[in-house]
Amino acid sequence: MGEFELIRQFFQPLAAAGGSSQLLLGPGDDCAIQRVPPGRDLVFSVDTLVEGVHFPERYSPFNLGWRSLAVAASDLAAMGAVPVCFTLALTLPEANEHWLSDFAEGLAKASAAFGITLAGGDTTRGPLTLSIQVHGTVAEGKCLRRSGAAPGDLVCVSGTFGDAGAALPYLDTVKPSPLQKAVLTQYHHPQPRVTLGQQLVGYASAAIDVSDGLLADLQHVLAASGVGARVQVDEVPLSAALQELHGNKAIELALTAGDDYQLCVTISPGQWSRLSEQVRAELTVIGQIEAEPGLRLEGGEEGISIQGFDHFGRTV
Amino acid sequence: MGEFELIRQFFQPLAAAGGSSQLLLGPGDDCAIQRVPPGRDLVFSVDTLVEGVHFPERYSPFNLGWRSLAVAASDLAAMGAVPVCFTLALTLPEANEHWLSDFAEGLAKASAAFGITLAGGDTTRGPLTLSIQVHGTVAEGKCLRRSGAAPGDLVCVSGTFGDAGAALPYLDTVKPSPLQKAVLTQYHHPQPRVTLGQQLVGYASAAIDVSDGLLADLQHVLAASGVGARVQVDEVPLSAALQELHGNKAIELALTAGDDYQLCVTISPGQWSRLSEQVRAELTVIGQIEAEPGLRLEGGEEGISIQGFDHFGRTV
Repeated sequence: MGEFELIRQFFQPLAAAGGSSQLLLGPGDDCAIQRVPPGRDLVFSVDTLVEGVHFPERYSPFNLGWRSLAVAASDLAAMGAVPVCFTLALTLPEANEHWLSDFAEGLAKASAAFGITLAGGDTTRGPLTLSIQVHGTVAEGKCLRRSGAAPGDLVCVSGTFGDAGAALPYLDTVKPSPLQKAVLTQYHHPQPRVTLGQQLVGYASAAIDVSDGLLADLQHVLAASGVGARVQVDEVPLSAALQELHGNKAIELALTAGDDYQLCVTISPGQWSRLSEQVRAELTVIGQIEAEPGLRLEGGEEGISIQGFDHFGRTV
Repeated sequence: MGEFELIRQFFQPLAAAGGSSQLLLGPGDDCAIQRVPPGRDLVFSVDTLVEGVHFPERYSPFNLGWRSLAVAASDLAAMGAVPVCFTLALTLPEANEHWLSDFAEGLAKASAAFGITLAGGDTTRGPLTLSIQVHGTVAEGKCLRRSGAAPGDLVCVSGTFGDAGAALPYLDTVKPSPLQKAVLTQYHHPQPRVTLGQQLVGYASAAIDVSDGLLADLQHVLAASGVGARVQVDEVPLSAALQELHGNKAIELALTAGDDYQLCVTISPGQWSRLSEQVRAELTVIGQIEAEPGLRLEGGEEGISIQGFDHFGRTV
């Protein structure tokens, strides 16, 4: 079987599965065609993952498939968008059947989990690199942006922080302990908050997904909104596994490590009280927006670094 | 200046320039936002270029900027779409100021030429690789597809063929002759037929842009439409430079070499006669669609290979 056929065999099922009614034409022509429903805006974002930079060499292709789509879908979550479809630009050194099969399986699992269908792509030979562009829609003018935070708004986060960062030393561990396994799962199988993002449309004043570190990403919101914030360090949610593994260092990881893919949003007290109990239960208030620029940390140990992870790049 | 700032400095102007009214939000948030006008379909396509595979090492960054966007815009031309915006996923080994400046200049020139604005992207460190995804719109249901060719339709092409392929031996030539320069220009500065594609909406029954070779790409149309074709090899348009440089071999290059980025379309005789003279003057009839599957070549020298260029991949 030719390489061309091999790729078609593994990726064609992803294009057929799910099948948003918006996707009028999938892979196989010069372009794909999407019909955005009246009254909806298209939102889109591209993320690149490079072997040896964003994931280790010889990384599990199944996990890579899941992770690459999850990371991209997380940007849709941050805008409050309903996922529709994605394109895959895949550069790989050789068309290895086992690798492709496992990668496609991970991608298919994420595709089904987030309700997002393969619309097209480009497969080329070269060093292992993936770029995934995701498309979603939001009611016209209702997108969550980084720029809407206002003084008095509550700073809220979903989930817990620091687990994915804590997993990095164990990526090559042959027999991880149960605690190590717990944080490794957060690294290998991030769960972007796609549903929660949609539930926050009309309530949150600003939103971002935390890929570079909680403080670094919160600072992006502050800069875009022209405001500052005060954060209660002790309120930042930590998993039991992280606290067991890292003790006093847990909070520093939670504040600065990347790859968690939770949401950090700002909500006015009035809107917070209008949110359903179910959605409020998904969020933890960790601070408040202030007019004075800058990020002020309260509580926690002395000497916490507030440097985010600068990965030479940014994502739109 | 940090690498982050350097990249922002060079790419931010591309996002500001032009500025389609459809692009509600460009780079800087988690996603870009496009509002597709009522009655229009969104069409999109991604193309990847890898150093050492799709362009030579140490290739001119200005030419790379032009070429990468031109190649992607050619897919919009093949659908008859009006270009709107694009994303750039750029992976590069280091943020070299001169390289970035020249690359951004080539990209800006192409962006202005094709009327397509930078909407967002991702910049990462790694082996030099670019993925560009272009967005355009077409009136609902009016996209040119590969699948509409019917027996009796004329097979037409724009421009001339084979020049870009003929340029490959001269890419490193220090002082190319005028003839060599002529074909090199086709390789370095392809001119996707964006306007012509739009003019063919409502007339052409099928269309494709010729990136892999005329016969290879025509075969994609035949396969998608479930038809065959007869092609008059002597009718395939050749540039004077190509004929001077390659004599008897010119036609083989024209039929099989890639990278020309002209259009190959099928049009019923009735629609052909309705086309304006101005548009007809842009096209050459080289054959006719037949019910019997397969591609039959007439005229030309004996022993012409009809193998297209299989570059281990396909583009949607």
